[in-house]
Amino acid sequence: MKTPLEKKLIFFATTNFHKFNEARAVFTKHGIAVAMIRIKSLEIQENDLEAIAKFSAMDAAKKCGLPIIVEDAGLFIKALNGFPGPYSSYIYKTLGIKGVLKLMEGIENREAEFRSVVAYCEPKTNILEAFCGKIKGKITEKARGKSGFGFDPIFQLLGSKGLKTFAEMSIEEKNQYSHRAKALHAFIKWFLRSR
Amino acid sequence: MKTPLEKKLIFFATTNFHKFNEARAVFTKHGIAVAMIRIKSLEIQENDLEAIAKFSAMDAAKKCGLPIIVEDAGLFIKALNGFPGPYSSYIYKTLGIKGVLKLMEGIENREAEFRSVVAYCEPKTNILEAFCGKIKGKITEKARGKSGFGFDPIFQLLGSKGLKTFAEMSIEEKNQYSHRAKALHAFIKWFLRSR
Repeated sequence: MKTPLEKKLIFFATTNFHKFNEARAVFTKHGIAVAMIRIKSLEIQENDLEAIAKFSAMDAAKKCGLPIIVEDAGLFIKALNGFPGPYSSYIYKTLGIKGVLKLMEGIENREAEFRSVVAYCEPKTNILEAFCGKIKGKITEKARGKSGFGFDPIFQLLGSKGLKTFAEMSIEEKNQYSHRAKALHAFIKWFLRSR
Repeated sequence: MKTPLEKKLIFFATTNFHKFNEARAVFTKHGIAVAMIRIKSLEIQENDLEAIAKFSAMDAAKKCGLPIIVEDAGLFIKALNGFPGPYSSYIYKTLGIKGVLKLMEGIENREAEFRSVVAYCEPKTNILEAFCGKIKGKITEKARGKSGFGFDPIFQLLGSKGLKTFAEMSIEEKNQYSHRAKALHAFIKWFLRSR
Protein backbone atom coordinates (compact mmCIF):
# COMPACT_ATOMS: atom_id res chain seq x y z
CA MET A 1 0.00 0.00 0.00
CA LYS A 2 1.45 3.33 -1.10
CA THR A 3 1.17 6.44 1.03
CA PRO A 4 -0.59 9.39 -0.63
CA LEU A 5 2.78 11.11 -0.92
CA GLU A 6 4.34 8.22 -2.82
CA LYS A 7 1.38 8.11 -5.10
CA LYS A 8 1.52 11.75 -6.00
CA LEU A 9 5.19 12.70 -6.12
CA ILE A 10 7.36 12.40 -9.20
CA PHE A 11 11.12 12.88 -9.40
CA PHE A 12 12.33 14.44 -12.65
CA ALA A 13 16.04 14.18 -13.44
CA THR A 14 17.01 17.20 -15.51
CA THR A 15 19.33 20.19 -15.49
CA ASN A 16 17.00 22.18 -17.76
CA PHE A 17 14.72 24.59 -15.86
CA HIS A 18 12.57 25.28 -18.91
CA LYS A 19 11.78 21.59 -19.28
CA PHE A 20 11.08 21.30 -15.60
CA ASN A 21 8.69 24.26 -15.58
CA GLU A 22 6.77 22.91 -18.55
CA ALA A 23 6.50 19.51 -16.87
CA ARG A 24 5.46 20.99 -13.55
CA ALA A 25 2.55 22.80 -15.21
CA VAL A 26 1.34 19.48 -16.67
CA PHE A 27 1.74 17.51 -13.42
CA THR A 28 0.05 20.21 -11.35
CA LYS A 29 -3.12 19.88 -13.45
CA HIS A 30 -3.25 16.23 -12.40
CA GLY A 31 -2.62 17.03 -8.73
CA ILE A 32 0.87 15.50 -8.87
CA ALA A 33 3.85 17.17 -7.26
CA VAL A 34 7.17 17.03 -9.09
CA ALA A 35 10.66 17.48 -7.69
CA MET A 36 13.61 18.46 -9.88
CA ILE A 37 16.65 16.25 -9.35
CA ARG A 38 19.56 18.14 -10.85
CA ILE A 39 21.72 15.30 -12.06
CA LYS A 40 23.16 14.83 -15.51
CA SER A 41 22.33 11.29 -16.49
CA LEU A 42 24.24 9.50 -19.25
CA GLU A 43 22.87 9.83 -22.75
CA ILE A 44 23.92 7.43 -25.46
CA GLN A 45 24.51 8.29 -29.14
CA GLU A 46 21.51 6.79 -30.87
CA ASN A 47 19.09 7.88 -33.55
CA ASP A 48 16.22 6.53 -31.51
CA LEU A 49 15.02 8.90 -28.77
CA GLU A 50 13.29 6.09 -26.90
CA ALA A 51 16.54 4.13 -26.52
CA ILE A 52 18.34 7.28 -25.33
CA ALA A 53 15.64 8.13 -22.79
CA LYS A 54 15.39 4.57 -21.42
CA PHE A 55 19.14 4.28 -20.96
CA SER A 56 19.20 7.69 -19.33
CA ALA A 57 16.34 6.84 -16.94
CA MET A 58 18.11 3.64 -15.84
CA ASP A 59 21.29 5.59 -15.23
CA ALA A 60 19.45 8.29 -13.25
CA ALA A 61 17.54 5.74 -11.17
CA LYS A 62 20.78 3.90 -10.39
CA LYS A 63 22.54 7.11 -9.43
CA CYS A 64 19.94 8.39 -7.02
CA GLY A 65 18.10 5.23 -5.98
CA LEU A 66 14.70 6.78 -6.65
CA PRO A 67 11.91 6.06 -9.11
CA ILE A 68 12.52 8.78 -11.63
CA ILE A 69 11.60 10.21 -15.02
CA VAL A 70 13.85 11.73 -17.64
CA GLU A 71 12.76 13.42 -20.84
CA ASP A 72 14.60 13.54 -24.12
CA ALA A 73 13.45 15.59 -27.06
CA GLY A 74 14.56 16.54 -30.53
CA LEU A 75 13.62 18.57 -33.59
CA PHE A 76 13.53 16.48 -36.77
CA ILE A 77 13.66 18.52 -40.00
CA LYS A 78 12.50 16.54 -43.02
CA ALA A 79 14.63 18.28 -45.68
CA LEU A 80 17.73 17.78 -43.51
CA ASN A 81 17.19 14.01 -43.07
CA GLY A 82 16.04 14.42 -39.50
CA PHE A 83 18.83 16.77 -38.43
CA PRO A 84 19.35 18.01 -35.68
CA GLY A 85 17.31 15.11 -34.21
CA PRO A 86 18.64 13.51 -31.02
CA TYR A 87 21.56 15.96 -30.91
CA SER A 88 19.37 19.09 -30.90
CA SER A 89 20.82 20.36 -27.65
CA TYR A 90 24.45 20.13 -28.83
CA ILE A 91 23.56 21.65 -32.19
CA TYR A 92 21.66 24.47 -30.51
CA LYS A 93 24.77 25.24 -28.48
CA THR A 94 27.18 25.18 -31.44
CA LEU A 95 25.28 26.30 -34.56
CA GLY A 96 22.32 27.88 -32.84
CA ILE A 97 19.14 29.00 -34.54
CA LYS A 98 21.18 31.04 -37.01
CA GLY A 99 22.99 27.95 -38.25
CA VAL A 100 19.80 25.96 -38.73
CA LEU A 101 18.17 28.85 -40.62
CA LYS A 102 21.27 29.06 -42.83
CA LEU A 103 20.99 25.35 -43.61
CA MET A 104 17.33 25.92 -44.54
CA GLU A 105 18.04 28.83 -46.90
CA GLY A 106 16.49 28.22 -50.29
CA ILE A 107 14.75 25.03 -49.13
CA GLU A 108 11.04 24.97 -49.87
CA ASN A 109 9.99 21.95 -47.85
CA ARG A 110 10.12 23.27 -44.31
CA GLU A 111 8.27 20.40 -42.59
CA ALA A 112 9.58 19.48 -39.17
CA GLU A 113 8.52 17.50 -36.13
CA PHE A 114 9.28 17.89 -32.47
CA ARG A 115 9.49 14.54 -30.67
CA SER A 116 9.67 13.83 -26.96
CA VAL A 117 10.15 10.67 -24.96
CA VAL A 118 9.49 10.49 -21.23
CA ALA A 119 11.11 7.43 -19.68
CA TYR A 120 10.32 6.18 -16.18
CA CYS A 121 12.51 3.82 -14.19
CA GLU A 122 11.96 2.27 -10.77
CA PRO A 123 15.23 0.92 -9.40
CA LYS A 124 13.66 -1.56 -6.96
CA THR A 125 11.18 -3.19 -9.31
CA ASN A 126 13.16 -2.72 -12.57
CA ILE A 127 10.09 -1.18 -14.14
CA LEU A 128 11.20 0.73 -17.24
CA GLU A 129 8.61 2.39 -19.45
CA ALA A 130 8.74 5.01 -22.19
CA PHE A 131 6.05 7.35 -23.53
CA CYS A 132 6.23 9.32 -26.77
CA GLY A 133 4.76 12.61 -27.94
CA LYS A 134 5.02 14.25 -31.37
CA ILE A 135 3.90 17.47 -32.99
CA LYS A 136 4.20 18.49 -36.62
CA GLY A 137 5.08 21.99 -37.72
CA LYS A 138 7.34 23.95 -40.01
CA ILE A 139 10.56 25.87 -39.75
CA THR A 140 9.94 29.60 -40.00
CA GLU A 141 12.03 31.93 -42.14
CA LYS A 142 13.01 33.98 -39.08
CA ALA A 143 13.14 33.46 -35.32
CA ARG A 144 10.06 34.80 -33.52
CA GLY A 145 9.31 35.05 -29.79
CA LYS A 146 11.24 34.96 -26.54
CA SER A 147 9.52 32.22 -24.50
CA GLY A 148 10.47 28.56 -24.33
CA PHE A 149 13.97 27.39 -25.17
CA GLY A 150 16.08 25.74 -27.85
CA PHE A 151 14.59 25.82 -31.31
CA ASP A 152 11.15 27.04 -30.13
CA PRO A 153 11.51 30.43 -31.93
CA ILE A 154 11.69 28.79 -35.38
CA PHE A 155 9.07 26.08 -34.88
CA GLN A 156 5.59 27.06 -36.00
CA LEU A 157 2.68 24.71 -35.50
CA LEU A 158 0.55 23.68 -38.43
CA GLY A 159 -2.77 25.33 -37.86
CA SER A 160 -2.06 26.89 -34.48
CA LYS A 161 -4.11 29.95 -33.64
CA GLY A 162 -2.51 32.98 -35.26
CA LEU A 163 0.32 30.74 -36.51
CA LYS A 164 2.52 31.32 -33.50
CA THR A 165 5.91 29.77 -32.90
CA PHE A 166 6.42 27.87 -29.62
CA ALA A 167 8.46 30.85 -28.40
CA GLU A 168 5.44 33.12 -28.88
CA MET A 169 3.33 31.03 -26.52
CA SER A 170 3.00 30.95 -22.75
CA ILE A 171 3.84 27.66 -21.02
CA GLU A 172 0.11 26.93 -20.72
CA GLU A 173 -0.47 27.51 -24.42
CA LYS A 174 2.61 25.52 -25.48
CA ASN A 175 1.43 22.66 -23.25
CA GLN A 176 -1.83 22.44 -25.21
CA TYR A 177 0.15 21.32 -28.26
CA SER A 178 3.67 20.31 -27.37
CA HIS A 179 5.40 16.97 -27.92
CA ARG A 180 6.63 17.14 -24.30
CA ALA A 181 3.14 17.68 -22.83
CA LYS A 182 1.80 14.80 -24.95
CA ALA A 183 4.50 12.43 -23.72
CA LEU A 184 3.92 13.59 -20.13
CA HIS A 185 0.17 13.04 -20.42
CA ALA A 186 0.76 9.50 -21.69
CA PHE A 187 3.10 8.86 -18.76
CA ILE A 188 0.67 10.31 -16.21
CA LYS A 189 -2.20 8.23 -17.53
CA TRP A 190 -0.10 5.06 -17.15
CA PHE A 191 1.34 6.16 -13.80
CA LEU A 192 -2.01 6.89 -12.16
CA ARG A 193 -3.49 3.65 -13.45
CA SER A 194 -0.54 1.60 -12.23
CA ARG A 195 -0.59 2.92 -8.62
CA MET B 1 54.32 -14.62 -19.49
CA LYS B 2 52.48 -13.77 -22.71
CA THR B 3 52.69 -15.90 -25.80
CA PRO B 4 54.02 -14.11 -28.91
CA LEU B 5 50.52 -14.17 -30.32
CA GLU B 6 49.03 -12.39 -27.32
CA LYS B 7 51.76 -9.81 -27.51
CA LYS B 8 51.23 -9.03 -31.14
CA LEU B 9 47.49 -9.25 -31.73
CA ILE B 10 45.08 -6.39 -31.25
CA PHE B 11 41.29 -6.52 -31.41
CA PHE B 12 39.67 -3.42 -32.86
CA ALA B 13 35.93 -2.97 -32.26
CA THR B 14 34.50 -1.02 -35.18
CA THR B 15 31.94 -1.30 -37.94
CA ASN B 16 33.85 1.15 -40.15
CA PHE B 17 36.06 -0.58 -42.75
CA HIS B 18 37.86 2.66 -43.64
CA LYS B 19 38.95 3.15 -40.05
CA PHE B 20 40.00 -0.46 -39.80
CA ASN B 21 42.11 -0.31 -42.97
CA GLU B 22 43.87 2.85 -41.81
CA ALA B 23 44.59 1.25 -38.46
CA ARG B 24 45.80 -1.99 -40.01
CA ALA B 25 48.37 -0.08 -42.09
CA VAL B 26 49.75 1.51 -38.90
CA PHE B 27 49.80 -1.73 -36.87
CA THR B 28 51.43 -3.68 -39.70
CA LYS B 29 54.40 -1.30 -39.68
CA HIS B 30 54.98 -2.29 -36.06
CA GLY B 31 54.59 -6.00 -36.76
CA ILE B 32 51.27 -6.16 -34.93
CA ALA B 33 48.30 -8.07 -36.30
CA VAL B 34 44.86 -6.53 -35.88
CA ALA B 35 41.49 -8.23 -36.00
CA MET B 36 38.28 -6.36 -36.72
CA ILE B 37 35.51 -7.12 -34.24
CA ARG B 38 32.31 -5.93 -35.86
CA ILE B 39 30.31 -4.87 -32.84
CA LYS B 40 28.61 -1.56 -32.27
CA SER B 41 29.67 -0.46 -28.81
CA LEU B 42 27.68 2.12 -26.87
CA GLU B 43 28.68 5.75 -27.33
CA ILE B 44 27.61 8.38 -24.86
CA GLN B 45 26.62 11.97 -25.67
CA GLU B 46 29.57 13.99 -24.46
CA ASN B 47 31.65 16.86 -25.81
CA ASP B 48 34.81 15.11 -24.70
CA LEU B 49 36.02 12.45 -27.16
CA GLU B 50 38.16 10.78 -24.50
CA ALA B 51 35.16 10.14 -22.25
CA ILE B 52 33.19 8.76 -25.21
CA ALA B 53 36.03 6.46 -26.31
CA LYS B 54 36.71 5.15 -22.79
CA PHE B 55 33.05 4.36 -22.15
CA SER B 56 32.84 2.69 -25.53
CA ALA B 57 35.96 0.58 -24.94
CA MET B 58 34.61 -0.64 -21.59
CA ASP B 59 31.33 -1.55 -23.23
CA ALA B 60 33.09 -3.38 -26.09
CA ALA B 61 35.41 -5.25 -23.71
CA LYS B 62 32.43 -6.29 -21.58
CA LYS B 63 30.46 -7.44 -24.63
CA CYS B 64 33.17 -9.63 -26.13
CA GLY B 65 35.36 -10.46 -23.14
CA LEU B 66 38.55 -9.52 -25.01
CA PRO B 67 41.16 -6.81 -24.52
CA ILE B 68 40.07 -4.39 -27.19
CA ILE B 69 40.54 -0.94 -28.72
CA VAL B 70 37.93 1.44 -30.03
CA GLU B 71 38.58 4.70 -31.82
CA ASP B 72 36.44 7.80 -31.79
CA ALA B 73 37.13 10.82 -33.95
CA GLY B 74 35.62 14.16 -34.81
CA LEU B 75 36.09 17.25 -36.93
CA PHE B 76 36.07 20.45 -34.88
CA ILE B 77 35.47 23.64 -36.91
CA LYS B 78 36.51 26.77 -35.06
CA ALA B 79 34.02 29.21 -36.60
CA LEU B 80 31.18 26.76 -35.81
CA ASN B 81 32.10 26.42 -32.11
CA GLY B 82 33.53 22.96 -32.61
CA PHE B 83 30.63 21.61 -34.69
CA PRO B 84 30.28 18.82 -35.87
CA GLY B 85 32.68 17.59 -33.15
CA PRO B 86 31.80 14.31 -31.44
CA TYR B 87 28.69 13.91 -33.61
CA SER B 88 30.60 14.05 -36.92
CA SER B 89 29.35 10.66 -38.04
CA TYR B 90 25.65 11.50 -37.48
CA ILE B 91 26.08 14.91 -39.09
CA TYR B 92 27.87 13.38 -42.07
CA LYS B 93 24.89 11.05 -42.54
CA THR B 94 22.25 13.78 -42.28
CA LEU B 95 23.73 17.06 -43.58
CA GLY B 96 26.71 15.59 -45.40
CA ILE B 97 29.60 17.56 -46.84
CA LYS B 98 27.15 19.80 -48.69
CA GLY B 99 25.51 20.92 -45.45
CA VAL B 100 28.82 21.72 -43.76
CA LEU B 101 29.99 23.70 -46.80
CA LYS B 102 26.70 25.62 -46.74
CA LEU B 103 27.24 26.48 -43.07
CA MET B 104 30.74 27.74 -43.96
CA GLU B 105 29.54 29.99 -46.81
CA GLY B 106 30.85 33.51 -46.35
CA ILE B 107 32.95 32.54 -43.34
CA GLU B 108 36.58 33.62 -43.63
CA ASN B 109 38.07 31.75 -40.69
CA ARG B 110 38.15 28.18 -41.99
CA GLU B 111 40.39 26.69 -39.30
CA ALA B 112 39.52 23.17 -38.23
CA GLU B 113 41.01 20.27 -36.36
CA PHE B 114 40.56 16.54 -36.66
CA ARG B 115 40.82 14.76 -33.29
CA SER B 116 41.04 11.07 -32.56
CA VAL B 117 41.04 9.08 -29.34
CA VAL B 118 42.03 5.42 -29.21
CA ALA B 119 40.86 3.77 -26.00
CA TYR B 120 42.06 0.38 -24.82
CA CYS B 121 40.28 -1.77 -22.27
CA GLU B 122 41.28 -5.14 -20.77
CA PRO B 123 38.28 -6.77 -19.12
CA LYS B 124 40.29 -9.03 -16.79
CA THR B 125 42.68 -6.45 -15.38
CA ASN B 126 40.38 -3.41 -15.68
CA ILE B 127 43.15 -1.56 -17.51
CA LEU B 128 41.60 1.41 -19.32
CA GLU B 129 43.81 3.83 -21.22
CA ALA B 130 43.20 6.52 -23.82
CA PHE B 131 45.53 8.06 -26.41
CA CYS B 132 44.88 11.24 -28.37
CA GLY B 133 45.94 12.52 -31.77
CA LYS B 134 45.19 15.87 -33.40
CA ILE B 135 45.86 17.55 -36.73
CA LYS B 136 45.15 21.12 -37.72
CA GLY B 137 43.87 22.10 -41.13
CA LYS B 138 41.24 24.15 -42.89
CA ILE B 139 37.89 23.58 -44.52
CA THR B 140 38.15 23.83 -48.29
CA GLU B 141 35.66 25.74 -50.45
CA LYS B 142 34.80 22.59 -52.37
CA ALA B 143 35.06 18.83 -51.83
CA ARG B 144 38.15 17.31 -53.44
CA GLY B 145 39.21 13.66 -53.72
CA LYS B 146 37.62 10.24 -53.45
CA SER B 147 39.74 8.41 -50.87
CA GLY B 148 39.18 8.19 -47.13
CA PHE B 149 35.72 8.73 -45.66
CA GLY B 150 33.53 11.22 -43.83
CA PHE B 151 34.68 14.81 -44.07
CA ASP B 152 38.09 13.94 -45.60
CA PRO B 153 37.26 15.65 -48.95
CA ILE B 154 36.90 19.08 -47.31
CA PHE B 155 39.81 18.87 -44.84
CA GLN B 156 43.07 20.29 -46.15
CA LEU B 157 46.20 20.09 -44.07
CA LEU B 158 48.13 23.22 -43.25
CA GLY B 159 51.35 22.96 -45.23
CA SER B 160 50.80 19.50 -46.67
CA LYS B 161 52.64 18.81 -49.92
CA GLY B 162 50.61 20.23 -52.78
CA LEU B 163 47.91 21.22 -50.28
CA LYS B 164 45.95 18.02 -50.65
CA THR B 165 42.79 17.12 -48.79
CA PHE B 166 42.76 13.84 -46.84
CA ALA B 167 40.59 12.40 -49.62
CA GLU B 168 43.31 13.13 -52.17
CA MET B 169 45.82 11.00 -50.26
CA SER B 170 46.49 7.26 -50.19
CA ILE B 171 46.12 5.51 -46.83
CA GLU B 172 49.92 5.56 -46.44
CA GLU B 173 50.11 9.30 -47.09
CA LYS B 174 47.13 10.10 -44.84
CA ASN B 175 48.76 8.02 -42.08
CA GLN B 176 51.83 10.27 -42.17
CA TYR B 177 49.69 13.13 -40.88
CA SER B 178 46.37 11.95 -39.55
CA HIS B 179 44.92 12.37 -36.08
CA ARG B 180 44.00 8.67 -36.12
CA ALA B 181 47.55 7.51 -36.97
CA LYS B 182 48.94 9.77 -34.22
CA ALA B 183 46.59 8.33 -31.62
CA LEU B 184 47.38 4.80 -32.80
CA HIS B 185 51.14 5.44 -32.59
CA ALA B 186 50.75 6.69 -29.02
CA PHE B 187 48.75 3.57 -28.16
CA ILE B 188 51.25 1.23 -29.83
CA LYS B 189 54.19 2.82 -27.99
CA TRP B 190 52.42 2.27 -24.68
CA PHE B 191 51.18 -1.19 -25.62
CA LEU B 192 54.59 -2.56 -26.65
CA ARG B 193 56.23 -1.11 -23.54
CA SER B 194 53.58 -2.54 -21.23
CA ARG B 195 53.81 -6.11 -22.53
